[in-house]
Amino acid sequence: MLNKNIETFIGCDNEYDESGIVIFGAPFDSTTSFRPGTRFASKVMRGESFGIETYSPYQNKDLEDFNVYDGGDLELSFGNTERALGQIEEYTRKVVQDGKIPCMIGGEHLVTLGAVRAVAEQYPDLHIIQFDAHADLRDDYLDEKLSHATVIHRVWDILGDGRIFQFGIRSGDRSEFEWGRNHVFTNKFNFNGLEEIVESLKGKPVYLTIDLDVLDPSVFPGTGTPEAGGVSFMELLQGILTVSGLNIVGCDVNELSPIYDQSGVSTAVACKVLRELILAVGTEK
Amino acid sequence: MLNKNIETFIGCDNEYDESGIVIFGAPFDSTTSFRPGTRFASKVMRGESFGIETYSPYQNKDLEDFNVYDGGDLELSFGNTERALGQIEEYTRKVVQDGKIPCMIGGEHLVTLGAVRAVAEQYPDLHIIQFDAHADLRDDYLDEKLSHATVIHRVWDILGDGRIFQFGIRSGDRSEFEWGRNHVFTNKFNFNGLEEIVESLKGKPVYLTIDLDVLDPSVFPGTGTPEAGGVSFMELLQGILTVSGLNIVGCDVNELSPIYDQSGVSTAVACKVLRELILAVGTEK
Amino acid sequence: MLNKNIETFIGCDNEYDESGIVIFGAPFDSTTSFRPGTRFASKVMRGESFGIETYSPYQNKDLEDFNVYDGGDLELSFGNTERALGQIEEYTRKVVQDGKIPCMIGGEHLVTLGAVRAVAEQYPDLHIIQFDAHADLRDDYLDEKLSHATVIHRVWDILGDGRIFQFGIRSGDRSEFEWGRNHVFTNKFNFNGLEEIVESLKGKPVYLTIDLDVLDPSVFPGTGTPEAGGVSFMELLQGILTVSGLNIVGCDVNELSPIYDQSGVSTAVACKVLRELILAVGTEK
Amino acid sequence: MLNKNIETFIGCDNEYDESGIVIFGAPFDSTTSFRPGTRFASKVMRGESFGIETYSPYQNKDLEDFNVYDGGDLELSFGNTERALGQIEEYTRKVVQDGKIPCMIGGEHLVTLGAVRAVAEQYPDLHIIQFDAHADLRDDYLDEKLSHATVIHRVWDILGDGRIFQFGIRSGDRSEFEWGRNHVFTNKFNFNGLEEIVESLKGKPVYLTIDLDVLDPSVFPGTGTPEAGGVSFMELLQGILTVSGLNIVGCDVNELSPIYDQSGVSTAVACKVLRELILAVGTEK
Amino acid sequence: MLNKNIETFIGCDNEYDESGIVIFGAPFDSTTSFRPGTRFASKVMRGESFGIETYSPYQNKDLEDFNVYDGGDLELSFGNTERALGQIEEYTRKVVQDGKIPCMIGGEHLVTLGAVRAVAEQYPDLHIIQFDAHADLRDDYLDEKLSHATVIHRVWDILGDGRIFQFGIRSGDRSEFEWGRNHVFTNKFNFNGLEEIVESLKGKPVYLTIDLDVLDPSVFPGTGTPEAGGVSFMELLQGILTVSGLNIVGCDVNELSPIYDQSGVSTAVACKVLRELILAVGTEK
Amino acid sequence: MLNKNIETFIGCDNEYDESGIVIFGAPFDSTTSFRPGTRFASKVMRGESFGIETYSPYQNKDLEDFNVYDGGDLELSFGNTERALGQIEEYTRKVVQDGKIPCMIGGEHLVTLGAVRAVAEQYPDLHIIQFDAHADLRDDYLDEKLSHATVIHRVWDILGDGRIFQFGIRSGDRSEFEWGRNHVFTNKFNFNGLEEIVESLKGKPVYLTIDLDVLDPSVFPGTGTPEAGGVSFMELLQGILTVSGLNIVGCDVNELSPIYDQSGVSTAVACKVLRELILAVGTEK
Repeated sequence: MLNKNIETFIGCDNEYDESGIVIFGAPFDSTTSFRPGTRFASKVMRGESFGIETYSPYQNKDLEDFNVYDGGDLELSFGNTERALGQIEEYTRKVVQDGKIPCMIGGEHLVTLGAVRAVAEQYPDLHIIQFDAHADLRDDYLDEKLSHATVIHRVWDILGDGRIFQFGIRSGDRSEFEWGRNHVFTNKFNFNGLEEIVESLKGKPVYLTIDLDVLDPSVFPGTGTPEAGGVSFMELLQGILTVSGLNIVGCDVNELSPIYDQSGVSTAVACKVLRELILAVGTEK
Repeated sequence: MLNKNIETFIGCDNEYDESGIVIFGAPFDSTTSFRPGTRFASKVMRGESFGIETYSPYQNKDLEDFNVYDGGDLELSFGNTERALGQIEEYTRKVVQDGKIPCMIGGEHLVTLGAVRAVAEQYPDLHIIQFDAHADLRDDYLDEKLSHATVIHRVWDILGDGRIFQFGIRSGDRSEFEWGRNHVFTNKFNFNGLEEIVESLKGKPVYLTIDLDVLDPSVFPGTGTPEAGGVSFMELLQGILTVSGLNIVGCDVNELSPIYDQSGVSTAVACKVLRELILAVGTEK
Repeated sequence: MLNKNIETFIGCDNEYDESGIVIFGAPFDSTTSFRPGTRFASKVMRGESFGIETYSPYQNKDLEDFNVYDGGDLELSFGNTERALGQIEEYTRKVVQDGKIPCMIGGEHLVTLGAVRAVAEQYPDLHIIQFDAHADLRDDYLDEKLSHATVIHRVWDILGDGRIFQFGIRSGDRSEFEWGRNHVFTNKFNFNGLEEIVESLKGKPVYLTIDLDVLDPSVFPGTGTPEAGGVSFMELLQGILTVSGLNIVGCDVNELSPIYDQSGVSTAVACKVLRELILAVGTEK
Repeated sequence: MLNKNIETFIGCDNEYDESGIVIFGAPFDSTTSFRPGTRFASKVMRGESFGIETYSPYQNKDLEDFNVYDGGDLELSFGNTERALGQIEEYTRKVVQDGKIPCMIGGEHLVTLGAVRAVAEQYPDLHIIQFDAHADLRDDYLDEKLSHATVIHRVWDILGDGRIFQFGIRSGDRSEFEWGRNHVFTNKFNFNGLEEIVESLKGKPVYLTIDLDVLDPSVFPGTGTPEAGGVSFMELLQGILTVSGLNIVGCDVNELSPIYDQSGVSTAVACKVLRELILAVGTEK
Repeated sequence: MLNKNIETFIGCDNEYDESGIVIFGAPFDSTTSFRPGTRFASKVMRGESFGIETYSPYQNKDLEDFNVYDGGDLELSFGNTERALGQIEEYTRKVVQDGKIPCMIGGEHLVTLGAVRAVAEQYPDLHIIQFDAHADLRDDYLDEKLSHATVIHRVWDILGDGRIFQFGIRSGDRSEFEWGRNHVFTNKFNFNGLEEIVESLKGKPVYLTIDLDVLDPSVFPGTGTPEAGGVSFMELLQGILTVSGLNIVGCDVNELSPIYDQSGVSTAVACKVLRELILAVGTEK
Repeated sequence: MLNKNIETFIGCDNEYDESGIVIFGAPFDSTTSFRPGTRFASKVMRGESFGIETYSPYQNKDLEDFNVYDGGDLELSFGNTERALGQIEEYTRKVVQDGKIPCMIGGEHLVTLGAVRAVAEQYPDLHIIQFDAHADLRDDYLDEKLSHATVIHRVWDILGDGRIFQFGIRSGDRSEFEWGRNHVFTNKFNFNGLEEIVESLKGKPVYLTIDLDVLDPSVFPGTGTPEAGGVSFMELLQGILTVSGLNIVGCDVNELSPIYDQSGVSTAVACKVLRELILAVGTEK
């Protein structure tokens, strides 16, 4: 009764040493060019996660049968992008060196770069699967190299051609799509072709990055740049399950901006996506 | 011009004696464990119902051709669950004894228990069809026997095995699903199999309880515990039409919490569901 | 650096003389009987349009390759309906007489009447394609002849039988549907049959009016009278593309009421619909 | 238990014949030039009035000791200003001819014109006391003679010089203040001088019109045109009490726009102002 | 870096044994008759507390110089009022028996009863100072003895005449004020007379209960029953400082309902009140 | 009728060359550590400014009698703080070199640093008057030198001791207040002593920076870090008028974050503050 108030995502209250998955928040949104606010995603998700169950009727699995550690939120430097990425990289490096799967909650999509730097260091043959509404392939954005709009181009700087697989993309400028044609695999609008890609990646280390704005804004209005014409929750869930047979060595969910959805539905959706993601990539006790 | 201000759901301004359907509000949400607020549903629905038409292009029927009485809201005891259920039971008993169909607007789902007690007394062979996101089959919840999370288990206490048919269920703890397997019929996620069930229930007295959170949160965010992956309005409408051939002796719609959807869309959806429900179960003048 | 602040819809910053399409706002909602607020649509859309891209991956076209002029908002008389319609008519007449396509942003749907008066004057053989949730075919509404609920009846007064083609209609009173059966083509609920209608209208001048409430309220809650059971963004987009082969001589989008959707998603959807509409009906430089 | 649902403002459920005060709603806002929505004020106030008590600790009086009839809302023509004013005038005439005090809930401030027409007919020596942030003295607004911005000028057309007394005014264009100097009494910013005016009006018939935006926007954000620098609730209450000794033959409260204050505080304030107003101008049983 | 996520109110992260003050949340609102939602107050306050500083320029003290333990939230039974009160009582008893000051965050005001039961047991000569908008003196409410509207009457059942001192009261029914006249000290509307009362209570054990709705709704809209005409933050702060010289043996702040103030200002105010309260009643290390 | 849509703050539509005051937006909030969103302030203020009048009854002046140019918003680099400050500095330099008064709309408070760099270059004897809730005197914040929380310390780096005068301060950590005691003049909580300071600064060049959170959150909830206990609008207005006799060579208003106040009241207040500021520091034609 008289214990300190430990707040974790529901069912993720295991000790670090015994855990196979480590979730942590990366509350950073300084390069967001349109509507900021993703910095509050991880904190709000923890609080609201108690509105969902630990049990998934989709996968017939229960978070209570998994060892997941919730490390809380990193304390990141607002306004100093390079330093913040370094802090994310350092934390992720510790997790992967300890043989655990990092599962980061953004923040804006740029946070993925910090995590991928550390994961790619450990797994040089790393491949990326990206669920997203936006291509994020610009080389620079308003003269900046480090931006939510350039993050996958920066990831490509590390990994090179043939390693990045995008699904659900429905927004970008013309040059992004043209550049992408030669460097990454892009499937527009939906998850068509995902099964074939998964087949070809069997056995390889894969980082899965889920920009939640891949969802239709009707399902997920609480995001900085809502893009009409997205996928449904069931399609995203199916996408996660399709990927789950792979060797996922790191993952993230990002771009929830709770303030823009005062019904709380976007947060509830994000919590459920995270639950299903953990159940899909983790290993039961 | 100088009459008192009578406020009813649109098109439901008939006298009690001449009516076949009696709608009434049960503004109770004291056992809601996550986000309360359903107590305001019936009042807000009456006010907003004037944004919809009395005519349904789906059924080609018009509320003005039906005799429906709106009895307003019961004045229930907040914080005394057993007493509030008794008040609901008493009102419903009067309605069914007068040979009318009670159509209750919740409130949290627990209010269904009060109505079912009275209806089952009149119709001992009562069966239940439940459209819902949540199984609501716990035996107790935080040590309480009477809770929105236990309501269908309590209904089962009255009716026993083989009388309860659930559709759209996508949330619960593992034990609920396991217990349910032996005692109720549960179809997860959607309305598959509804037609067969309806076929088997022909001629029997049926109580239809619609927890509006069976709808996808994109369609119906204004509820206490939104669950991603629900049905569309057209699917729910089809479900109601499928059931409409049965001998419906009581029904309810519940779990609208208007404060969580400030766009008013959830209320508008609830009003349309209620209109279609009345047109489906009632008899034209 | 030191220029005045010109605010246009994204990518629509061309000069009037060089432009083929003229967009302008008609901020009028005085006859709205339920929830007003569409008067703010055009202003809010301009501001938020910078959250979308000029490039469409659906049509592989870019607004920057089109000549579009944004004339800002008309200054309309609130509370004097006939005068406001006259102001809209006058502006539209100038645009069509200069050989350009007017593309109006409402406002409530009644504004369409002002534009159609001018366009029909120039193109006596004008036909109307209407995407809408509501039939808008009443002859009068609360004794008023000029109303958002009568606008298409007023358009019929000008054009007569066989010229009006409605799609997506799912709300109206019984008399509207009955009257409509003899005077206009109505396809309820969706866009079925649109291709045949388009085939039959080849070569004829067509005015396309998009009441955005044809969209499902989950996609577009920010409107005065949300109607459950609408089309998805992809269906509306497909509808626009289907129509795009016709000789569109005028068009409008209307009934966005930003205040009712504080997530901003409805505005973002409206912006994308307008982008796709311009790309579909315009001609590349 | 089985009565129809009569909805009145709290404690105002008496019969017409026995009542001394008649409250009614005038849900009209068609000439509002900035943010509409006052049409919903009376309906929302009735519903929320049950959050306050009938007893006033300020006046030590209780609504239950007064005979007040609530006639509900007039059904007004949106978009036809003259007709709507005529409907208000007609209803008010009936009330004053029956020797009762009309107490109207707006709507935009223009509704006052309809009521004053009828009251001035009965009481040719009528005087007006106006609590307001805005002078409302324009002769026309965007070329319209009938507008929320011209209403007091129109009232002056009926009553002439020396009959109108404004308090709390803090917004207007320069010409309004200049014109007003010769035709009405205006006290800017607060209620200074109200006692002297009240002294001078002893025994004369007075119509009190309270534009609730006289309150500071911190107290009352839910209005179309919030103006910083207003009075507190206690100052407004004191203003009402100061006036209460006069022969008030009609009154109104207007310009609540509930949608702009989702906390509900503005509505709660409006309810309390209305309670205090009734207790101040009415007579105990 | 790799510690579990402990979430406390800002600056209240000390160990239980070393602390003089114990804060804990009592998330209960089942008897709320108007607008529920206070159950979320403590959780939201912890999260938002990081928007304020630990240092108070008013008292020139810093939370970091105090030993305060945050025990998190009690897990209370929704819908079973007596059991929930028992859980609060039990927790409070442990705290007071350990010689510490309990500082509870409500929840609805009824939670005070649970805490007072335990504190009065330890300190039979207990006195109560209540800052509140509502008298809360009903003997029953809708036939219930245990209610937010009866809580101070229930406290009186324990303590008897002459022990309860109310300030700021501005709402209640007539009978409450009349009953109160003989049993409790009530100062309406403000804190006049507080200094004299404080003088008379020197040396006696005092429980301070702050219903935050004593604040004006402009300052604190996020509450279930906002009452116009309240005190300012500076007045409440002065009230707390005035009381601080007494022997405060327990205290609470209650009735924040975050959902009703989406600006977050009410939560920020509540956090600052709690900070000042702790600094006022605690002892520096 | 067919002009491009030029959007300026109301009454500020003069040409650059003829203007004495230049307003421009600095939409930057990347270092905001709590709630971001001030980037939208200037755009939203322009749109909403048409809800206020150009005439001030407080100063009996009218914006239409002043020459003010609105240069729109700077396009700043998100996430690159130093570059963004450079862009602000460059624009301000142009304005002051042309002999005009820059009047910047933030953005977070850090933008003041960019403007002050340019103004201090032109006026080496520059003094600063700061109206603010927060001291903003930290030397670094989360290891960053450039932050909203350090901005006045950075300004001090340029100007040195005895040049900075703070009013209204009610939040900071203890070290800020202690450091400030030796380097700047700080008046806590209100504007006491402002007249004496103004007297002592007669004839000297002064930059006035108004962090709008100096206002009480009841008046101005739409800001990132609301601090209870602030000044009223009338007090702030009086503060501006007191300062207006000085030689104001630059000024700014900042920290409006519109998303946090969906009533729009904060924006309306900010517009009125800007109107009064322009009227106070400008020169009539």
